[in-house]
Amino acid sequence: MAGSTHGVLFRVHTWGESHGGGVGCVIDGCPPGIALDLDAVQRQLDRRRPGQSKLVTQRKETDTVQVLSGLSADGWTLGTPISFVVPNKDARPGAYANLQSLYRPSHADFTYQAKYGIRAASGGGRASARETVGRVAAGAVAEQVLTAWFGVSIVAWVEQIGGVTLPPGAVDEKLLTRDAVDGSPTRCPDPAVAAAMEEQIVAARADGDSVGGVVRCVARGVPPGWGEPVFDKLEADLAKAMLSIPATKGFEVGSGFAGTSLRGSAHNDAFVPGPAGVPVTATNHSGGIQGGISNGMPIRLRVAFKPTATIFKAQDTVNEAGEAATIAPKGRHDPCVVPRAVPIVESMTALVLLDHALRQRALSAP
Amino acid sequence: MAGSTHGVLFRVHTWGESHGGGVGCVIDGCPPGIALDLDAVQRQLDRRRPGQSKLVTQRKETDTVQVLSGLSADGWTLGTPISFVVPNKDARPGAYANLQSLYRPSHADFTYQAKYGIRAASGGGRASARETVGRVAAGAVAEQVLTAWFGVSIVAWVEQIGGVTLPPGAVDEKLLTRDAVDGSPTRCPDPAVAAAMEEQIVAARADGDSVGGVVRCVARGVPPGWGEPVFDKLEADLAKAMLSIPATKGFEVGSGFAGTSLRGSAHNDAFVPGPAGVPVTATNHSGGIQGGISNGMPIRLRVAFKPTATIFKAQDTVNEAGEAATIAPKGRHDPCVVPRAVPIVESMTALVLLDHALRQRALSAP
Amino acid sequence: MAGSTHGVLFRVHTWGESHGGGVGCVIDGCPPGIALDLDAVQRQLDRRRPGQSKLVTQRKETDTVQVLSGLSADGWTLGTPISFVVPNKDARPGAYANLQSLYRPSHADFTYQAKYGIRAASGGGRASARETVGRVAAGAVAEQVLTAWFGVSIVAWVEQIGGVTLPPGAVDEKLLTRDAVDGSPTRCPDPAVAAAMEEQIVAARADGDSVGGVVRCVARGVPPGWGEPVFDKLEADLAKAMLSIPATKGFEVGSGFAGTSLRGSAHNDAFVPGPAGVPVTATNHSGGIQGGISNGMPIRLRVAFKPTATIFKAQDTVNEAGEAATIAPKGRHDPCVVPRAVPIVESMTALVLLDHALRQRALSAP
Amino acid sequence: MAGSTHGVLFRVHTWGESHGGGVGCVIDGCPPGIALDLDAVQRQLDRRRPGQSKLVTQRKETDTVQVLSGLSADGWTLGTPISFVVPNKDARPGAYANLQSLYRPSHADFTYQAKYGIRAASGGGRASARETVGRVAAGAVAEQVLTAWFGVSIVAWVEQIGGVTLPPGAVDEKLLTRDAVDGSPTRCPDPAVAAAMEEQIVAARADGDSVGGVVRCVARGVPPGWGEPVFDKLEADLAKAMLSIPATKGFEVGSGFAGTSLRGSAHNDAFVPGPAGVPVTATNHSGGIQGGISNGMPIRLRVAFKPTATIFKAQDTVNEAGEAATIAPKGRHDPCVVPRAVPIVESMTALVLLDHALRQRALSAP
Repeated sequence: MAGSTHGVLFRVHTWGESHGGGVGCVIDGCPPGIALDLDAVQRQLDRRRPGQSKLVTQRKETDTVQVLSGLSADGWTLGTPISFVVPNKDARPGAYANLQSLYRPSHADFTYQAKYGIRAASGGGRASARETVGRVAAGAVAEQVLTAWFGVSIVAWVEQIGGVTLPPGAVDEKLLTRDAVDGSPTRCPDPAVAAAMEEQIVAARADGDSVGGVVRCVARGVPPGWGEPVFDKLEADLAKAMLSIPATKGFEVGSGFAGTSLRGSAHNDAFVPGPAGVPVTATNHSGGIQGGISNGMPIRLRVAFKPTATIFKAQDTVNEAGEAATIAPKGRHDPCVVPRAVPIVESMTALVLLDHALRQRALSAP
Repeated sequence: MAGSTHGVLFRVHTWGESHGGGVGCVIDGCPPGIALDLDAVQRQLDRRRPGQSKLVTQRKETDTVQVLSGLSADGWTLGTPISFVVPNKDARPGAYANLQSLYRPSHADFTYQAKYGIRAASGGGRASARETVGRVAAGAVAEQVLTAWFGVSIVAWVEQIGGVTLPPGAVDEKLLTRDAVDGSPTRCPDPAVAAAMEEQIVAARADGDSVGGVVRCVARGVPPGWGEPVFDKLEADLAKAMLSIPATKGFEVGSGFAGTSLRGSAHNDAFVPGPAGVPVTATNHSGGIQGGISNGMPIRLRVAFKPTATIFKAQDTVNEAGEAATIAPKGRHDPCVVPRAVPIVESMTALVLLDHALRQRALSAP
Repeated sequence: MAGSTHGVLFRVHTWGESHGGGVGCVIDGCPPGIALDLDAVQRQLDRRRPGQSKLVTQRKETDTVQVLSGLSADGWTLGTPISFVVPNKDARPGAYANLQSLYRPSHADFTYQAKYGIRAASGGGRASARETVGRVAAGAVAEQVLTAWFGVSIVAWVEQIGGVTLPPGAVDEKLLTRDAVDGSPTRCPDPAVAAAMEEQIVAARADGDSVGGVVRCVARGVPPGWGEPVFDKLEADLAKAMLSIPATKGFEVGSGFAGTSLRGSAHNDAFVPGPAGVPVTATNHSGGIQGGISNGMPIRLRVAFKPTATIFKAQDTVNEAGEAATIAPKGRHDPCVVPRAVPIVESMTALVLLDHALRQRALSAP
Repeated sequence: MAGSTHGVLFRVHTWGESHGGGVGCVIDGCPPGIALDLDAVQRQLDRRRPGQSKLVTQRKETDTVQVLSGLSADGWTLGTPISFVVPNKDARPGAYANLQSLYRPSHADFTYQAKYGIRAASGGGRASARETVGRVAAGAVAEQVLTAWFGVSIVAWVEQIGGVTLPPGAVDEKLLTRDAVDGSPTRCPDPAVAAAMEEQIVAARADGDSVGGVVRCVARGVPPGWGEPVFDKLEADLAKAMLSIPATKGFEVGSGFAGTSLRGSAHNDAFVPGPAGVPVTATNHSGGIQGGISNGMPIRLRVAFKPTATIFKAQDTVNEAGEAATIAPKGRHDPCVVPRAVPIVESMTALVLLDHALRQRALSAP
């Protein structure tokens, strides 16, 4: 199992490199009879695309998604595999030619070479951010099933960039919309904090350097009962999904690392009677998951993104022969990928949730 | 796929509840011809066991592992499934009888009921820490294969309990041994810090309360090339494995959340020539993994554990009918499970690493 | 994936050899809330057991199944893994000691040695018929879910032994019961044919030889819609399940090999209006499956079993050193395993059907 | 798991319908460093293609395969997913429009409708023979790895069409080549028998009817040790792979159903000393597999294909409302698909063998 498949029942297989004919995915296991909104899929792809604002690289990918199978002529899902293709248009292998014999620091050049004994002649191969195109397309489909069948809504935003952090409580997580998130190119919904984040990015760009950050995601409307005990706990699958995104270094659910310094009496989420006889919790340190299973409260998670590895400064490295060398990359790159990661985090959240929703459906008596 | 299986090639299926006849696991896919040291398996089980010190619950489980299949008469692995059984001995369902109709806060009672429409009459079912017996037994087997075939060694220790944290650099991660870790009942290898942690636990116990903490784990000797691109990145599978442990709330690899505030020029790990022509990195913010694939440096990760949900204080909750109620548990419980989590973290690390080692073996030309 | 797991959602992991502490299985993914009839499980195990009649080996296994997890105190499935153990009682490793260095013809001794470089010191290891204990226990559970949720009933019988074949139409497949099948030790429901089959077995036994045969199985009440297109067609999973039973050499669904000599006009199953607006077919050459998906008609299949490899005649073989040798087994063995294969075929049918039933449930809109 | 994936380590995901933009597959887990011969892939696709001879439908698909990812610029496999696309060119949905409300007998129209509640407006959806394009492309890749790494060669041919059968021993299975098989449009390598088969097809075509048949396949050079005990026996995975091909009704390995009437003393394959100390068998009733594991002898299997369901005769059926109706298809169809099934059987054999080869590699000590 070579690792390009996500999910047990809602299965997504991504393929493609930054060189080659394109990138895409196959979705196997999409429920039939969903009226698929391809514009909504394209919108999420557009949010992921480089070159959206002055803050990010100006590479002009159009990333127009094509559907080769799985839909009826009038746009209903057939239950059969949905094949998405996004052709590569702006592949310029020459841009990387001079780097070929050097291992870029904190990229995957060396590890791919060590693993496979061969690697693509240009760009980052499967480690490129371009691989995430397929995930975002598939996640946008998953979201539509989650909404149509269960009323789930997912929204992510930027909570930190470099040293600037959105204070707790600054966002109304129950009401926040993607439009509000997209109000700033940083995708931080608080204008003042967003402006400070923007300064971090601009300053890093001026220095030929890069900055990292943190994305927060909330899923609202998840009913109790999704997730499996033991190895496939809902938070475990979310953690895996998030750490599979390029450049991630950490994951938190609910109270996260900060919760470790609380005492149990402060951390426990008291149950209180809720609507329709279903209890709710007074606090949500659990992040909407208890014992690996959703409890009906919002699912809350955070993901850490390291600063982009590509910087325009001379760095020590070695070449393929193992000899010391200096690398000084040139080209077009984002000084900060965190805003573009927002739709990717949303998509991975959707893929995990829908897969577990279907797994739970399988247990429902006829 | 109901979630009690770990791994693609080295597959572990755990079973068992805190009530019932026992707990155990089946390992399918263990390489043949390994001289299995069952005493080493038992030692890791003993480290996981409750009642090891004055700091933890005095429940006297003996947890003696039995092997029902998969070994030759003289103790070699046959390549066939290894079945481990650990009988339950101290199951006292009566201890929980009065709690049956109340949902314990931050436990899995409500979510199990919501998911299955039924739940075990006592203890925590599959959400109980007792489920981890099977993982630890399987992980101890995986470690032996990792050592015999690849020379990998894994060690974990406690880095934080409550508000007490081991300072960076206090431990020599290259040389640390499990014996050194076990020098204190807290499993923190620094005596002074361990003493302060002990005070945290003792104070919480005196208050009928609980504390959480953080476990650090390092795997040394992992060769470059393990891990798959995209969804099954090595850090993604580690994140999933760690978040599948009961009571976990966060995961970090390498620089983790702290690394998000660095700039790329400070975060990038410069390559320098290493032994036998294989490059090493001057720093290890990557945590031994780049692009989802091991790079030969030590793999470094951290796991957050919330304070134990079981406390001996009155708390608000609801009963199965959805009505408000008060719960005031009595019984025997750890005020802090973090020291006992150390062998569990080691075991999950071993399960992930060996599975990926075998996956990489599959690609080796004959 | 080492091959001891069956199913995607209703997952069965078997373990155990004919030597060692026992055999058993873990069922992960059994729906919760089923009142499990353990006596019915035991009955199927008893039908599989050696030593049931004068026709078969007199080895006295009791094969009493123990349940270690997954059931509530009053016998309801909890949705958690069900662990079944059947201890080995009559393991006599000495009986095989003299065969250890010789490869028994048409057994798995040589191939296990070639695969693993080691093999169990006695009996057939995982290739032993004893491995099927776990399958039968799990299949008996699957049958109970199929009956409770969907009204499916499964019955298999012996259609051929050696040169004696039950003529087409001799059995009313709609009404046939297991009691009727068990009326003869051959498990052929036609008394006259059964008597002729019995002669074949007795004659083979007298000669120290063995005979093979064919088992037919019918599943009644399967609704339309089970099975997946392409690789996981219902007949594909049935074929795999049947060919995974020891000693099988062939599989047919519906018209099978005989249908290949018909013309399409004779082979096509015309649709006719059926009850509740659901069409039925006038004939059933399709065997209840079209395009990999059940069509509501009875599922009909046949399985070929070779003559038992263990015979009491001198045969040419080689030893582990690759030198020519003669083998002359002694001991207790069935001259014909086909009657005992009947509950195994039923169990494998049930495992496939329930797994696909749950997969289809997963697609049902809430 | 919606069923469009084959394999554990060499994983193939097919997608596409006879309508829509195309068909194709993604191969995940192809070993790196293989110099892929795309012409050889195209040749197998050409052998599968309709319209190759006067015997079959004249639909002119060109089926030119495009590679979108997974290869280096000079044609080496990178270890990353290989994405194959074959655009649909001759899709004429109008040809099927009049059939839309009728369920074609022995097609998958009714079962797809029952399963999904929706079905493609034209052709056979995923049940169409066109789905096999992706399998053949992937199988052709698998064959190249099998040849490069292990020296395996696979050849299939037609052994029966309608009532005409190739006599046993008519073919030298050790030396038979695909060129020899392709000497006749029937793909029967014996000219006289091929001529008689041709008559069967021509006669059926003249009658607006169809005929079925049997394909034999042999894999030469498979080393001992491939295949897993219990559920993933090599013959079990072969059986599943074959029964997943459209229109198949049966599978045999080695002696098959005919072997059931032999006695054990006639059926057992005596071992004799072989080259390099590896034993061979004097006969091959086992079909190259014992206990689910290859024994080094040629793997021999047979697959039954029913007569094509599409015939040009009026037939009874029902419409979507469940009412009786008459159907009289018009269009272009093969009266016999068996010759075109030859490369499909070869491809499925290759997919199973390579997947098990990699699984066995994973167990090899470093």
